[in-house]
Amino acid sequence: MRLALIGVGLIGGSAAAAFRAAGVVTDVIGFDLDPAAAARGVSVGVLDRAAASVAEALLDAELILLAVPVGAMPAALAEVALYAPPFAVISDVGSTKVSVIEAARVALSANSSFSFRRFVPAHPIAGGELPGVEHADSALFRGKRLITTPVADTHAEALARVEALWHAAGAEVIRMDADEHDAIFAAVSHLPHLLSFALVAQIAGERDGERKLGFAGAGFRDFTRIAAASPVMWRDVALANRTALSAELRGYRALLDDLQRAVDEADAVRLMQVFDLASRTRRGGRVKAGDGE
Amino acid sequence: MRLALIGVGLIGGSAAAAFRAAGVVTDVIGFDLDPAAAARGVSVGVLDRAAASVAEALLDAELILLAVPVGAMPAALAEVALYAPPFAVISDVGSTKVSVIEAARVALSANSSFSFRRFVPAHPIAGGELPGVEHADSALFRGKRLITTPVADTHAEALARVEALWHAAGAEVIRMDADEHDAIFAAVSHLPHLLSFALVAQIAGERDGERKLGFAGAGFRDFTRIAAASPVMWRDVALANRTALSAELRGYRALLDDLQRAVDEADAVRLMQVFDLASRTRRGGRVKAGDGE
Repeated sequence: MRLALIGVGLIGGSAAAAFRAAGVVTDVIGFDLDPAAAARGVSVGVLDRAAASVAEALLDAELILLAVPVGAMPAALAEVALYAPPFAVISDVGSTKVSVIEAARVALSANSSFSFRRFVPAHPIAGGELPGVEHADSALFRGKRLITTPVADTHAEALARVEALWHAAGAEVIRMDADEHDAIFAAVSHLPHLLSFALVAQIAGERDGERKLGFAGAGFRDFTRIAAASPVMWRDVALANRTALSAELRGYRALLDDLQRAVDEADAVRLMQVFDLASRTRRGGRVKAGDGE
Repeated sequence: MRLALIGVGLIGGSAAAAFRAAGVVTDVIGFDLDPAAAARGVSVGVLDRAAASVAEALLDAELILLAVPVGAMPAALAEVALYAPPFAVISDVGSTKVSVIEAARVALSANSSFSFRRFVPAHPIAGGELPGVEHADSALFRGKRLITTPVADTHAEALARVEALWHAAGAEVIRMDADEHDAIFAAVSHLPHLLSFALVAQIAGERDGERKLGFAGAGFRDFTRIAAASPVMWRDVALANRTALSAELRGYRALLDDLQRAVDEADAVRLMQVFDLASRTRRGGRVKAGDGE
């Protein structure tokens, strides 16, 4: 199968490498707005060829994989819509789904030659320590989960083809509603990132911030590891998933209001309730181990 | 030197083991409200003897080390005040300092035979994965920091003796004001714990909480690792340091109010400001690596 990879980074590069290693993809052409990224993709063997334009990358493509940041999805989809061969399948790896589906619906409905039904929204739950196609790893998705969020009119055969690819890459394929997907990841991924960014920014902005950070220990380092992530990517995720993130943040702020009151009034019972529920939950094996992201 | 260890757990046990390994303590008697903990201290060789009461432990003690949870400090200090030999030095390992100093001032001033001036407030910035004296490690403090927070009338010789002990245990000794200590650790330790407990409790309390937690990835696991900590210990820390924690939490909530607005209004500029400051700070090596807690 001929794969056009739009966006040549860690996730897209690892997907191409994994599909190729599984024998389900034989020919990979990549396009990236940064020509150096596509060139690196060729030099590390993830791409057979770097295309100079989206149009060139899409020529005769059977599968088109969008692996750009979610903020760049609308523009990428609009261009893909112009050149996608009519029988190709388009999929993505975006970590928010409702906004990507909406962007795809707009872009692909505007182009009569390609049907929105052949777009399969997907999200591999995996990540690596280091960005860039030079760190692509064909084993990145092995044992990890891949979520598809088809809509009512998603073409069944297109969906089956995309799910088979990820299955071949070693992922456990799970299908769910896009709204549920976004609510889940708002809670377990997007909100924690926002909270971690906020804590580091808060302390860094204090007059004695530098001195305080000099005394940070292992707990602080764990809590703020995700605050080292790309601010552009997470700004885009926060905006793309802002309905679900807003609801989750609102609930969290209400709990913090209550904890502020409990601290101020020395309400030991309430503090214990919250801390104990958290500690039992966190230790109780309900937090799955093993997935990256 | 003869050491009386009040509270036989990981930190106190490790301190006794470190002082003994450095040759600065020769004789260690321990007391714990849980006789089994003291017995384990003897069986692993951290204690020479388990005392049946505080009074017995303090007999002829030259150094008295309080290694109980901060919530138990007032009661422990009140009892120590009754039996401490007049020339002994008392110190502690509590992770909040203003409240412990206040408790010591009350307890030790009430007992004319012992002077508050011989109490040296201290906080070793170290921790281990597993609690209990059976995990005591004489190397736990090597290369870690030990903060003393003397008050104006702390006896200079008593302070020097305690600092020399920790120096012998391999710690870097830093002296600072108790208010500053509490503000620093409210920001880099106590607030992150509260925030991490709150996130897990928030999700666990949702109707679909179990399902959401099943999709938690590596970022969530890092962010919530500290939510597996002892709820009793952290409730006590939150209460003991509630003035500084309250101020820090208030500032953090104001930032979250602003981020809620930025998410709701899709204010990309403001989100980027906060995320970018955090990401640069976190990656910039201003967060010291190496300390435990």
